[in-house]
Amino acid sequence: MDASAAKLIGAGIAAIGMGLAAIGVGTLFAFFLSGALRNPAAADSQRPNLIFGFAVTEALGIFAFLVALLLLFAV
Amino acid sequence: MDASAAKLIGAGIAAIGMGLAAIGVGTLFAFFLSGALRNPAAADSQRPNLIFGFAVTEALGIFAFLVALLLLFAV
Amino acid sequence: MDASAAKLIGAGIAAIGMGLAAIGVGTLFAFFLSGALRNPAAADSQRPNLIFGFAVTEALGIFAFLVALLLLFAV
Repeated sequence: MDASAAKLIGAGIAAIGMGLAAIGVGTLFAFFLSGALRNPAAADSQRPNLIFGFAVTEALGIFAFLVALLLLFAV
Repeated sequence: MDASAAKLIGAGIAAIGMGLAAIGVGTLFAFFLSGALRNPAAADSQRPNLIFGFAVTEALGIFAFLVALLLLFAV
Repeated sequence: MDASAAKLIGAGIAAIGMGLAAIGVGTLFAFFLSGALRNPAAADSQRPNLIFGFAVTEALGIFAFLVALLLLFAV
């Protein structure tokens, strides 16, 4: 296998990382919604933690997307 | 393996990322529905968080789909 | 490996994504049914959220199916 073929396979494998990050983001919001529906009065107080947790979790998926794009177009 | 073959295998591997993102989206709605059935009166108040969480989780799956389409038709 | 062989392997790998999406759809309906059996009176009120969540989760699996079909018949 030469390098021009390996980078295309590598980009496909990097897409697995995006899907795995989506599991993390989905689980994060799932538990927030579960707790917020149990105690709606406190939901707004935990909004900053939700957004911060979402941002750092989504960032890992975006980094995997960046790796895929780098493999496709930059390397 | 040459590049024309590697991009086809890479597109197939990228489809795994879509399926993994579906686990995240399914978990998100699953916990929302579980909580909304426990406390239906508060379901509407958490609708914005549901939609926001769904959008960012689905986006990661769409990014994986984008990588698959790039591998199939653009690279 | 030449391209005509790689597309067949890629289509098979894309089917993994469909199966993973089925985990998300199954989890979604599982939690809905669990909550609906606990509080049957509220089940109808959450039917729209159930259908919306099912549609977007199933869509990711359909996208994986689309990638498999593209690999088999279009590329």
